[in-house]
Amino acid sequence: MRPSGRKTDQMRKVSFERNVSKHAEGSCLVKFGDTHVLVTASLEEKTPPWLRNSGKGWVTAEYGMLPRATGERMKREAASGKQSGRTQEIQRLIGRSLRAVVDLQALGERQISIDCDVIQADGGTRTASITGAWIALRDCLAWMEARNMIKVEKVLKDHIAAISCGIFANQPVIDLDYLEDSAAETDANFVMTGSGGIVEIQGTAEGKPFSEEEFGTLMGLAKNGIAELVALQKQTIGG
Amino acid sequence: MRPSGRKTDQMRKVSFERNVSKHAEGSCLVKFGDTHVLVTASLEEKTPPWLRNSGKGWVTAEYGMLPRATGERMKREAASGKQSGRTQEIQRLIGRSLRAVVDLQALGERQISIDCDVIQADGGTRTASITGAWIALRDCLAWMEARNMIKVEKVLKDHIAAISCGIFANQPVIDLDYLEDSAAETDANFVMTGSGGIVEIQGTAEGKPFSEEEFGTLMGLAKNGIAELVALQKQTIGG
Amino acid sequence: MRPSGRKTDQMRKVSFERNVSKHAEGSCLVKFGDTHVLVTASLEEKTPPWLRNSGKGWVTAEYGMLPRATGERMKREAASGKQSGRTQEIQRLIGRSLRAVVDLQALGERQISIDCDVIQADGGTRTASITGAWIALRDCLAWMEARNMIKVEKVLKDHIAAISCGIFANQPVIDLDYLEDSAAETDANFVMTGSGGIVEIQGTAEGKPFSEEEFGTLMGLAKNGIAELVALQKQTIGG
Amino acid sequence: MRPSGRKTDQMRKVSFERNVSKHAEGSCLVKFGDTHVLVTASLEEKTPPWLRNSGKGWVTAEYGMLPRATGERMKREAASGKQSGRTQEIQRLIGRSLRAVVDLQALGERQISIDCDVIQADGGTRTASITGAWIALRDCLAWMEARNMIKVEKVLKDHIAAISCGIFANQPVIDLDYLEDSAAETDANFVMTGSGGIVEIQGTAEGKPFSEEEFGTLMGLAKNGIAELVALQKQTIGG
Amino acid sequence: MRPSGRKTDQMRKVSFERNVSKHAEGSCLVKFGDTHVLVTASLEEKTPPWLRNSGKGWVTAEYGMLPRATGERMKREAASGKQSGRTQEIQRLIGRSLRAVVDLQALGERQISIDCDVIQADGGTRTASITGAWIALRDCLAWMEARNMIKVEKVLKDHIAAISCGIFANQPVIDLDYLEDSAAETDANFVMTGSGGIVEIQGTAEGKPFSEEEFGTLMGLAKNGIAELVALQKQTIGG
Amino acid sequence: MRPSGRKTDQMRKVSFERNVSKHAEGSCLVKFGDTHVLVTASLEEKTPPWLRNSGKGWVTAEYGMLPRATGERMKREAASGKQSGRTQEIQRLIGRSLRAVVDLQALGERQISIDCDVIQADGGTRTASITGAWIALRDCLAWMEARNMIKVEKVLKDHIAAISCGIFANQPVIDLDYLEDSAAETDANFVMTGSGGIVEIQGTAEGKPFSEEEFGTLMGLAKNGIAELVALQKQTIGG
Repeated sequence: MRPSGRKTDQMRKVSFERNVSKHAEGSCLVKFGDTHVLVTASLEEKTPPWLRNSGKGWVTAEYGMLPRATGERMKREAASGKQSGRTQEIQRLIGRSLRAVVDLQALGERQISIDCDVIQADGGTRTASITGAWIALRDCLAWMEARNMIKVEKVLKDHIAAISCGIFANQPVIDLDYLEDSAAETDANFVMTGSGGIVEIQGTAEGKPFSEEEFGTLMGLAKNGIAELVALQKQTIGG
Repeated sequence: MRPSGRKTDQMRKVSFERNVSKHAEGSCLVKFGDTHVLVTASLEEKTPPWLRNSGKGWVTAEYGMLPRATGERMKREAASGKQSGRTQEIQRLIGRSLRAVVDLQALGERQISIDCDVIQADGGTRTASITGAWIALRDCLAWMEARNMIKVEKVLKDHIAAISCGIFANQPVIDLDYLEDSAAETDANFVMTGSGGIVEIQGTAEGKPFSEEEFGTLMGLAKNGIAELVALQKQTIGG
Repeated sequence: MRPSGRKTDQMRKVSFERNVSKHAEGSCLVKFGDTHVLVTASLEEKTPPWLRNSGKGWVTAEYGMLPRATGERMKREAASGKQSGRTQEIQRLIGRSLRAVVDLQALGERQISIDCDVIQADGGTRTASITGAWIALRDCLAWMEARNMIKVEKVLKDHIAAISCGIFANQPVIDLDYLEDSAAETDANFVMTGSGGIVEIQGTAEGKPFSEEEFGTLMGLAKNGIAELVALQKQTIGG
Repeated sequence: MRPSGRKTDQMRKVSFERNVSKHAEGSCLVKFGDTHVLVTASLEEKTPPWLRNSGKGWVTAEYGMLPRATGERMKREAASGKQSGRTQEIQRLIGRSLRAVVDLQALGERQISIDCDVIQADGGTRTASITGAWIALRDCLAWMEARNMIKVEKVLKDHIAAISCGIFANQPVIDLDYLEDSAAETDANFVMTGSGGIVEIQGTAEGKPFSEEEFGTLMGLAKNGIAELVALQKQTIGG
Repeated sequence: MRPSGRKTDQMRKVSFERNVSKHAEGSCLVKFGDTHVLVTASLEEKTPPWLRNSGKGWVTAEYGMLPRATGERMKREAASGKQSGRTQEIQRLIGRSLRAVVDLQALGERQISIDCDVIQADGGTRTASITGAWIALRDCLAWMEARNMIKVEKVLKDHIAAISCGIFANQPVIDLDYLEDSAAETDANFVMTGSGGIVEIQGTAEGKPFSEEEFGTLMGLAKNGIAELVALQKQTIGG
Repeated sequence: MRPSGRKTDQMRKVSFERNVSKHAEGSCLVKFGDTHVLVTASLEEKTPPWLRNSGKGWVTAEYGMLPRATGERMKREAASGKQSGRTQEIQRLIGRSLRAVVDLQALGERQISIDCDVIQADGGTRTASITGAWIALRDCLAWMEARNMIKVEKVLKDHIAAISCGIFANQPVIDLDYLEDSAAETDANFVMTGSGGIVEIQGTAEGKPFSEEEFGTLMGLAKNGIAELVALQKQTIGG
């Protein structure tokens, strides 16, 4: 029995609210249950130094948590003077995941910076960030298309979405909330495209090691969940 | 003529949304027009070192801006590794303002940390922060009273609210938005209590110096505005 | 009764010693009683990046305290690796105050860096810094005029001076020393020009809030004090 | 054809040199071809703060690269003042992997710090680090057993080893060297125990997404490779 | 011919001004010609952690330069966020030199912090710092003796003074000023006690290597110079 | 009697292993007994900013210690976020020493970065670093000569080598190991060229001051030792 009463293959209620920022070229408030992430996409007409004069652009991501997004207040990273290893790991993952579906040549020499700020956390903040970031990124590209800068379909090759799965109380389950996450034996994050290609897999045994079979079950759960998320993304952008 | 079409003594629409955080003991999403600040109040059962065994508690504040809260994306302070002088100035101001209406002895040896995170900025983020922080602080104290830890009326001696005034296009105006703020000749922030006492005044000539008379006009605008804000606070807490 | 025996409207003995640095283009050792600040003005033939090719120059300020300028030795900021919020607040104030009387266009694409280093502290270090910085800045400009780079009267539009006032033992007093400052109920700093224009006002209730009337009294004290300081500046530069 | 001429399922020559440090309780110079990592295990009679009085110990890891371990000299992290996101990611991975086979209760309130310093890099530094760290950790525990502090078999529950696999030139291959790694379409790291349990999986599509089938092939390669590494570990410790 | 017209064995005019700080237990403004260093000695009733409960005290030193102490303004170390290698080297030298003549056991579990802040630099700041620091330290100890905390003669075993010598224009000279220092072929600093014992020698070939004979000449110059400085210290403390 | 049983004028066994790095243009593993330092020389086709367009090149050095190079594990400098004063002092010394025998004009506008990483420490790491760095530097220059970039004999004017001497148990001894170093009364490092010129002298009294005669004895020991080291360098490069 899951603490939330959900079935093992049942994700939390997922929603995307677009255009939540007056300033950003694209933005999305994504909710996976009580996990709320505000994502903005900011267009900048310059690229990182290593891409100058390459004709290619870049998509990068930063991740942060408000200090009281969690049950216990955490020290503000700006005050402590550095980003934790966990923060850096997550923002690198978000950036890689998005770049997997972007044609950087078609984007041209520009950078889109994705900011994922966790307003409230209840497990799965990195997967919610990736899934919501796709919406913000797409709306940023649409903003650019409206100004004849690019064609969305040339730049954005596919959907991307992510979900966590894990083994909780000896049962493979999807979309772990905080209570499950902190007690799970195994925790795995999957990032996949709309066409079912795998972009990232991260599986970690928190307690005892897991078997290939267990991992296969988690991947099966993830495939279904991500298909649902992609369907929801399509519906959200009114496609 | 103000860019927004407001009258010189007309504030923007102000609203407070309480209990916006699942985790925090008190929280408030405060909006002054397009300036939106998420405030949380976090209770911690420990004080700063210099208050140990004094019987007194502490109220402190931190302030941050999401990178794309503004028209142009700003560098994330956690990534650049330090808080700007402006950030530190503002969070010191918020903390001082709140402590002016708190009886630290009655609070007991505990710390309440106020986090003011600007979700969207359009001028006046520090005054919105202070005004909304009072709500979050009060709800945190109510949470404590419900657990017999303190009495709200013993700890919280008065309301506190803040507003900016300035001279824009040669006219004294209240509650400057970003367009006005960036062009104002004089910019002044006022923090006052519910009973009309002054807690902080910060006046700065951006262009030419201002006169004592002009400053008096600004203070008059501020007194009326803060009275309105305090009335709104009272209505919000269901008083 | 003030600890120093001064009358409520009596400033400490103020003195300016010019040309105290062999190297700096302008310099001044300013003393407000036992508060001693060494100010240097350094000319650099470059501007901050955001002013390149604008034809305008810049005046900026940095502030520091020797570790044993105070009663208890403070940690050296260079050793702790960052400037405190207080330090940043003060150096931003000094810079803004000086720029209020400088025509940056007439200065041309150059930067003057003002360094205010507190040799000994006894309250009022920021107001002494601003008042002495005007002398150092003026001497730096005279150095430039002697080299046909600018005309002093084109660049420096007015005098600037600053004083603190506060309510100590229920009495409004001027130019608080450390003993008064640490016990004052209200503390206010005023920065004004030679022609009486107000450039900065910072008033803070340390204990109970203050009233508009009390603030008016403090401003009256400040106006007289600053007029005296400006007269002393004039006498110092031999004008 | 692989640049090194190896078969797709052929690892590089792997060797472990024990007792390479005069000072450390356990140490190992591990080589995966031209990738050389010096690992030391340091026993400290104290635990991190969050384990005080818990009766449990801790195993942690740090990772570094000498500046010229790579083809182009990299900036020294000690000089740049912070560890990169990549460094932090890797050292967190090494620590988690080792803890998966350690009984922290049986270790007692002590910490073992594993330092993995890459002397020369040619791809696969993190997998070599984990595999060599097991030897250093085991020798540290043997040192402790010789002093009647613990029993090795009580603390160390299993072997742990790691290998990278990837898709290079459309072919699944094992143990990528730098030339392969920098051109691979997919890169996956596997950490498994001696008994075949999976502890960590990290798979990343560098170019186009990969399929579940491809991932299965990589995992098959990894299982065989890790079995070989574990056999080599056993032979090394003379078991 | 030396730029200053001094003879090869002639030091600049040296002076010590005592009690220049209202707050510090000991203080001295030391001048070696145009090199001016303000030294304070601060007594703290605690020791560094590694001396707790050892019965021994500590003497430590910090060194800083005001940004415009030099011909060109230097970046403020507090602003750049770290102390340069040169600064750290010098302050370690000052601390070691002073400790060479202090009986740390007789001092008791206390720390004396020496702050050497260069107000104006013209070469030889480290040797002026050491020589002046002896005065400030001695006055701090006298302050302690007056309060029956220690006996000066038990704690302070000897004088300590320092001088630089170098080879300038092929001639061995003493007490190099900035013009000489920046053009010297060899630069050496000597720290010696009142009884002629050597505490520190630092010799550096700036251009071509020097010979043992040349070094002997420099040491001879230093011995005479330091004897003069010690005589001046004695005269200063009214001995 | 020395702990190692060596005679007072007997150095430890010294060896140089060349070409230990697959990537670096020059490299050397130098051993002075149990002190092992890995030195790499990295050629970069750019100079520091202050040498741009000067026609001159630069040689710089960085120094590091693996955390468990020592008897007790030290905190990793990359993790603590800064290099210690000791580290900076040593790397400045290494750089200065090497530049003393390099014709920077003949090198041309390039930089050679020397990295000295202490794999295992047993006293004398800085002298071993300098002595081994000469080999790595020379091999880097030979690599350049083979590509017709420079002539070795034009750039490298002489040998450079270094040794420590000290007074241990009242006896002047050469090449102190850790046991001697930590108990020595006086510790001195000498850096000399192949032709006997002195480049650096650093002598420090750890306990009681030393006399000019004692220092002369140490220098005599050093001259002989360095002559041996230079002979060994010559033999190593097959000259």
